[in-house]
This record gives sequence, structure tokens and C-alpha cells, in this order.
Amino acid sequence: MSVGKLEECREHIRAQLDAVVEFWLKYSHDTVYGGFFTCIGRDGNVYDELKYVWLQGRQVWMYCRLYRSVDRFRRPDILEAAKAGGEFLRKFARVSTNGNKWKCAFCLTRDGKAVKVQRTIFSECFYIMAMDELSRVTGDKEMQLDAEQMMEQLIYWVREDASGLGRPQLPGDVPTNSMAVPMMLLCLVQQLSEGRPEAGKKYAELGSWCVTEIQQHIQRDGTAILENVSATGAELPGCLGRLQNPGHALEAGWFLLRYAADNNNKELQRTAIEKFVELPFESGWDKAHGGLFYFLDVDGHCPTQLEWSMKLWWPHSEALVAFLMAYSQTRSRELLENFFRVYEYTFSHASSMYLAAFTCVRASWMICWENMAEYSDISVQRKGTHLTCSPEF
Amino acid sequence: MSVGKLEECREHIRAQLDAVVEFWLKYSHDTVYGGFFTCIGRDGNVYDELKYVWLQGRQVWMYCRLYRSVDRFRRPDILEAAKAGGEFLRKFARVSTNGNKWKCAFCLTRDGKAVKVQRTIFSECFYIMAMDELSRVTGDKEMQLDAEQMMEQLIYWVREDASGLGRPQLPGDVPTNSMAVPMMLLCLVQQLSEGRPEAGKKYAELGSWCVTEIQQHIQRDGTAILENVSATGAELPGCLGRLQNPGHALEAGWFLLRYAADNNNKELQRTAIEKFVELPFESGWDKAHGGLFYFLDVDGHCPTQLEWSMKLWWPHSEALVAFLMAYSQTRSRELLENFFRVYEYTFSHASSMYLAAFTCVRASWMICWENMAEYSDISVQRKGTHLTCSPEF
Repeated sequence: MSVGKLEECREHIRAQLDAVVEFWLKYSHDTVYGGFFTCIGRDGNVYDELKYVWLQGRQVWMYCRLYRSVDRFRRPDILEAAKAGGEFLRKFARVSTNGNKWKCAFCLTRDGKAVKVQRTIFSECFYIMAMDELSRVTGDKEMQLDAEQMMEQLIYWVREDASGLGRPQLPGDVPTNSMAVPMMLLCLVQQLSEGRPEAGKKYAELGSWCVTEIQQHIQRDGTAILENVSATGAELPGCLGRLQNPGHALEAGWFLLRYAADNNNKELQRTAIEKFVELPFESGWDKAHGGLFYFLDVDGHCPTQLEWSMKLWWPHSEALVAFLMAYSQTRSRELLENFFRVYEYTFSHASSMYLAAFTCVRASWMICWENMAEYSDISVQRKGTHLTCSPEF
Repeated sequence: MSVGKLEECREHIRAQLDAVVEFWLKYSHDTVYGGFFTCIGRDGNVYDELKYVWLQGRQVWMYCRLYRSVDRFRRPDILEAAKAGGEFLRKFARVSTNGNKWKCAFCLTRDGKAVKVQRTIFSECFYIMAMDELSRVTGDKEMQLDAEQMMEQLIYWVREDASGLGRPQLPGDVPTNSMAVPMMLLCLVQQLSEGRPEAGKKYAELGSWCVTEIQQHIQRDGTAILENVSATGAELPGCLGRLQNPGHALEAGWFLLRYAADNNNKELQRTAIEKFVELPFESGWDKAHGGLFYFLDVDGHCPTQLEWSMKLWWPHSEALVAFLMAYSQTRSRELLENFFRVYEYTFSHASSMYLAAFTCVRASWMICWENMAEYSDISVQRKGTHLTCSPEF
């Protein structure tokens, strides 16, 4: 019965994916300046022309991944759109501040002028994902090199010297291991290494470092995943230290699960499922009304983030992918039931979930879902996120 | 009947103010490192030791203003606490980045080390308010000078050259007149000038400039207040240009009303009431469930801020002060009725309002209310805000 139900889910997701891809193909392409519009109403009207680099990168990645891994999307118009998006990114994403030619903007005007630069690594992460995936469908070695050179810069910022990001050194700003950083780097290691043994060798040590860093977030004798810990893996004081982000923990869970599978590491698989899938789901699920909270305080204080109690679409997509992947690796009935639980909540609240999301990025997790439902590991790569991330994320 | 009802409101507010001041006197003072704790649970426990400069400044201002203008708070313990808070601020608030000795931190550790610096002017605004008000109760001329010197720096950043704030110049980042800036400067002009004719003369031109800049936000043939306009007062494209912040508009309204009264400017009074009190109330009030929205899009799109539909306590306090002040100047029955409408909503939702607020800052608007209820203009100065403002606000 469960397998039949899973098949139904897959059918539903497949239909959604088709509709979403058509929507973005139809309404998001800027044929005048290149790149993609990312703020589009349900009626297809562009209500803001700004171009967010995260989303430009994700859309290039999404088109390429669809083209490369899902037969019915191997269409010339999708390939051309991906190439045009990649060209826009290469032309305009990098802003060369602080004398560094790799720093990317967070946001661009319609014609590619930088509006805002974040002092973090995330725009650059999405640049890498786009270029690497694009190089796989075009066979363009220069693009692959572009992705790997940007990756070198990221690694330098994260592991050697962050001063190039432009954040001033302040005496009270203690070094923090934010889970987002090793999690994103692990995702990139997996992207860059897929089917490329040389890259795999090159990034093996980094991958292992990311896994260690992510596991530092298991705190309080294994009873909680905390979003921020000290550089040596200790709990930090105050709200920052007590912060939980269930969606992030679940996201880390599925990257770890993939790593465990690639390396046949059963112990890591167990840790990933127990600590990064089951635990954040247990603590992050709203027992009264269903859905995953955005933020929580491990001691039950009210988080300082105003939006903490909101049910955003993206943590639910992380949970769906994580549970399905955990199920595919273990065939545990309980994991499958939790998948259904999240699935039912998500699709019965789809209208508000969809309102909360900018639709571009839906499509990329649809790919994950669809292929996950085939119990395949190969195509699980990226999720999307809401456009309005905190500027300092 | 209305006057009796107003008297009831005042009694209620008076009792609330007493309770709130006692709470902060009892739980917020850091007797080890100085300054005030600002993250305190209902039980008095400090759940985060970080010291936000906005809130340090507001608490100093609040204690001094209470001491100076409300007889029952003219207590030595309140004066001493204000002085200790001022000392902490003078010792630690300024971080001297970019070779500028006036730049203030946004947030400090318990022992005064800078954790975060914003590239805006707002921490500095609250530093000025604290120092000016403190100088009024201590008679310390050096503090007054400190406030005025900081004010000179602010004016330079706002009107001459913003590069000292540390924000990189980006080609797509068009100059924007954000209402928060002239609004805060007008508030500071009123603070610094009160009862000091020399300062009044010094800042007269600035005050007039602020009033002009604020009025640039009346857009669309007088039918909307927009939060951000171009440097020349034109509507900006996209979400940024369509953004409405009803609480800010109402806050600007009461600063303008005060300016109009000080300058016997009936035309400005009418503009303030029609455009900055009635209009944002009309557009910002939730007709279905009551309460003021945090953000709106003038064309009815969903704002990109996740928290747009939340009912925060501070816009309601702005509305209460604005309506009461407008009523005190005009005796219009409709304005009084809207005051009661907001009052009833606010106090019938007090529990969630209070949960959303960090209580320190409640007290400062309580002062406003209490004195407003006496139909007096003299003590209306500041409101508080929620601690978790956007990092880039």
C-alpha cells in the first residue's frame, strides 16, 4: 500500500514539476538584458525587476539538471535558456570589491549593475553550482575551471582568511561555526565531484572536513542540533547559541546521507538519520497545528526572529527529501510514514506555501522529489529558498 | 463620556508604566559591567546578555525623561541608573571604525566589546538622545557637547558624504530617501532644541529640511505614503518603491504634528493629520481582524518581508500617540474615536503584543501616553522598538 501511495506522490510531483517549468520558461526570461526575472506573480507579471544572484544561479542549475537527468526536459529551449542565464551570470555576477575579482553581488539591476553585496559566501556558492552544472551539459572546460576557481576562493575565505569578505574584525564578534557554511560547502563538493574522479580526489579532504564541522552541531549530549557553535564545537551563550533551524538541520541531514552512501559509511548514515532527520523533525514539528517552525530556541524561549513561528515552504521540502532519502537507504517504515506526514501537510497547505515561495525555486526541489521517488541518489542536489533571505544570512 | 473614557485610559497606562518601570529597575541593571540587560523574560531572567546600543540609549533616555518630567519618578535610584547607563554608553558605544571616532556599534558584549556595527545612523541617533536627555538632568555641559558633536557627524553623513558609514558604493544602488532618516533627524532636532533656544536656532534649518524630506513620501497624488523614494522625491521602481510601513508613517505624523505646533503651522498640521495619520491608518489597518500590518505593498502585491502581516506592538504605540496628539490639537471626535479603536485592539491583544516586545522600550511610550493624556505637548519624545530590527535597517 505504501509503495502505491509513493507512486501517487511521484505522479503528483511530476505534474507539478511540468507546470512549474512551463511557468518559468514562459514568464521569467529577460530577452532584453538576459538573465531571469525572479519576482513574478501567479499571473506571470513581473512585479520587481531585480535579479538575485542566488536565484539566477539556481535557475541555471535547474535547467541544466533537468536537461541532463530527466528525459522529457532534454529540450533545446531549456538548454539555450540555461546558457543565456550562465552568460548573464559570468558577465555581471562578480563585482570585484576589495580588490578581489571573485566576490559576487547578492542582487543586480535588470541590466546587471550590482545593487547589494553580502559579506558572506552564498552568492558565490550558487555561482559555482550554476557553472559546474552548465559545464556538464555544454562540455565547456572553461566553465568547469571557472567553477573550480571560485571554489578555491571560497575555501580560502572559509578555512584561511575571511577578511576578503569585507566584514570588519570586531573584538566582541567571536568566531562562530554556522552550520550553513560547511553544509553548503559539502553540497558543492558533491556537485563538483559527481562523476569526475579527479575533482573527487581534489575535494575529498574538504568533504571530510565539512562532515566533521556539521557534526559539531550535535549538542547537549546528542539531544539537539544547534545552528551556531564555537570554532571548537562548543555551545555558544545566548540566543545565538540556542538557535535551532529545523529546515537547515534536515538539509544537512540529506547531504550527510548522500555522503554516507557515497562512502559506504554506515555509522554516519545512522548519525545523519537519528540526529539530522529524526531529531529536528521531532523538535521542529508543530504538534498542535502541524508544519515545521522556521526557528526555535532549544530552551523554549521565544526566538528573537519575528518570523520564527512561520511555516515556510522550504523546510518542508528539505524534510520531504531527507525522509525519502533516509527511507530509500533503510526501508524503515517509520521514515516513510514521516515522509507522508510532511507530504500531506505540505500539499494540503500548498496555497499558502506557494504564496510564500517564489516559484522559480520550487522547480529545483521538484527534481529532487521526482528522482527520489525513483529511489535514485544521482540527481539529488539542490533545493531552492525564499527570495527574502536575511541580508546577513 | 469620551473624556471620562480618556481618563480611564490614562489610569490604566499609569498603572502599566509603574509596573514596567519597576520591572526594569529590578531586573535589567548589570551591576558588574554596567549598562542594561535588554533580553529579559517575564520572570526577570536574563536570557541573552548582549547589549544593544539602541536599547541602552533608550533606557538612559527613558529614565532621565521620567526623572525630569513625571514627579513620582524623580527618585535618586532612577537618576543613578541613568548615569551608570550613560557612562557605559560613553565608554563602549563608539567603535572608531574606518578611522572615524564617532561610529557606534549596534551591539556589544556584556563587558562592552563591539559585536556588530551597522552601516546606518541609528545607533548614533539613540546615543544622541541618551546624552542630550542625561545632560538635562545632570546639568553636565560636556554631555550636551557630546550629543551635539555626534549630531554634527550624523548631519555630515546624511547631507554631505555617507562613505564614512562603510557601505560600498555600488553602481546599481540608486540613492534613496528612506523615510526613517529625516524622521529620526527631526526627532533629534526636537530633542536637542527643547527649551534651548541656541540649539533651536542651530538646528532650525535642519528641522525644516527634515519636514520637506518627509513630505516627499506623499506619493500618487496624495493617496499613499511610500517608505522609500528617490533622492529627488520620485517613486522608485519595484518592491522597494511600493513599500509601505504604516507604523513609520504614523511615527512621522506625530513628529510633524509636534513641529507644526511648535511653529504654529496650520497647513503642516493638516498635512500631518490627513496624510501621515489618517491615510496610513486607513491603508494599514486590517479590516478583517483589526490591528496594523507591519508592511504593505501599495499595489497589493505580497511584500517580500516575511513578517509583513504581523501585528507588532510598536506601530500600535505610534498610532496611539499620533491619534491622541492629533486630537489634542484639533479636538476632532473622529480622531479620538480612532484612538479608542487602536487602544482597544492594543490592550485586548496585550499578551501577544507584550510577548513580541522587549519590555524596556514599552516604558518610553508609556511616558508619551501618560503625558499625552494630559493634553500636553512637552513630554512626547520617543517610542521604543522591537529588538530584532533588520540588520540592514
